[in-house]
Amino acid sequence: MAKGQSNRLTLQQKEGQGPVTIFHEDAQIHDKEVGNTSLTVITQLQSEYPMLTFRYRKDLSKKEINAALKKVDEYLGQTLFVDSARIKPDGGLIEVKDDNGHWRVVLVSEAKHQGKDIENIKAGKLVGKNNNQDLMAAGNAIERAYKNVNEIANFMLSERYFPYILFLEGSNFLTENVVVTRPDGRVVTLVYNDGMLNRLDRLTAANYGMPINTNAMALLLCCRRHPFILKVKAVTGMMMI
Amino acid sequence: MAKGQSNRLTLQQKEGQGPVTIFHEDAQIHDKEVGNTSLTVITQLQSEYPMLTFRYRKDLSKKEINAALKKVDEYLGQTLFVDSARIKPDGGLIEVKDDNGHWRVVLVSEAKHQGKDIENIKAGKLVGKNNNQDLMAAGNAIERAYKNVNEIANFMLSERYFPYILFLEGSNFLTENVVVTRPDGRVVTLVYNDGMLNRLDRLTAANYGMPINTNAMALLLCCRRHPFILKVKAVTGMMMI
Repeated sequence: MAKGQSNRLTLQQKEGQGPVTIFHEDAQIHDKEVGNTSLTVITQLQSEYPMLTFRYRKDLSKKEINAALKKVDEYLGQTLFVDSARIKPDGGLIEVKDDNGHWRVVLVSEAKHQGKDIENIKAGKLVGKNNNQDLMAAGNAIERAYKNVNEIANFMLSERYFPYILFLEGSNFLTENVVVTRPDGRVVTLVYNDGMLNRLDRLTAANYGMPINTNAMALLLCCRRHPFILKVKAVTGMMMI
Repeated sequence: MAKGQSNRLTLQQKEGQGPVTIFHEDAQIHDKEVGNTSLTVITQLQSEYPMLTFRYRKDLSKKEINAALKKVDEYLGQTLFVDSARIKPDGGLIEVKDDNGHWRVVLVSEAKHQGKDIENIKAGKLVGKNNNQDLMAAGNAIERAYKNVNEIANFMLSERYFPYILFLEGSNFLTENVVVTRPDGRVVTLVYNDGMLNRLDRLTAANYGMPINTNAMALLLCCRRHPFILKVKAVTGMMMI
């Protein structure tokens, strides 16, 4: 049976053209929104701080991350297998040039979407193997979010701040109960701390279990070393000092 | 098209009974082997250090991790959404009781398998959308390995060592070229640093880009703070001091 599952997985990946299948439509829109938000942020920064030079870029090479690590300790940042390896946070990176001409990170953002239960219930769609469940057991794809958190933390290892924002959307990230009405009038309550549904605990190690910002269901990951609440302006202000 | 992909993914997950599909047969055997290795290690430790008390456990609750974080700083370890949340590294945890009666971690291990290209080529099986490729483009599931690394790093935040081993197996983790002969005699060379195949760079942020142990294709993640080569005996020795 296990072998059957393996073969089925191969077939599924083939039909779905590989990794593309893990990103559904909502997630793609969500990603785009975060990219747009970054462009809004840099425009705002440029307008508020005309004396500073900002730049936006979509990716960061592992070579640059390794170079930053080596500056901290020669023993770090030694490994590179694929020469062109790079990371691409959905919202890219915003940087500012400091007084010594070095680029310093102002903002890195990512957008992740997991859980379509609200949409399914609203559409009156039952899910599960036998199409008789209101809720779909949550997956664990979101755990991949740690990679870029770790990469950026390494890139900024010598810094005393960590301006990384992970925007989370979907029914696997509820912080309060949500009541949804089906087209047939039946009401379904999504219980936020239901283990089948909630995947927030799979992410909180990334910020040492510090409180998360639940505004608009966004998870705020910041300050791996020195706790403070991240506001883009506050960080920018700090960089000017 | 994107919506079609979303629906197809839902169907795939349903057919595969959810997350189970991501673990194929080899991966399951590999996991079991790591569990067995841990039991061998604890038996060996008990025999070599009869004056010490060891224990083995399969999982660790988020509550315990939060408590460890709070000891470092009251502001950490505050968040818990699902009361029963816990982590389950494949190889479990081995701990030793120190002179003050506190349990200290000796070894945490995980086993991950990704990439079946060698098996496929040996079996003469072509892959890809049109079944005309020797190699399957690698996925990114392995990135989920960071979660438990981060969880254990938090649990051990006040410690000066990090005895975490991630065993990697499969064609996505090659550190040298591998030549495979098909049943029809055609020879296929797997180029280790081919970007389509190699996923090691997706993991190296976890150990700050320090060299990895390529023996038996195992990736050694250790010593987040103080580089040294992990040997179980060495760590045990350290704990006794």
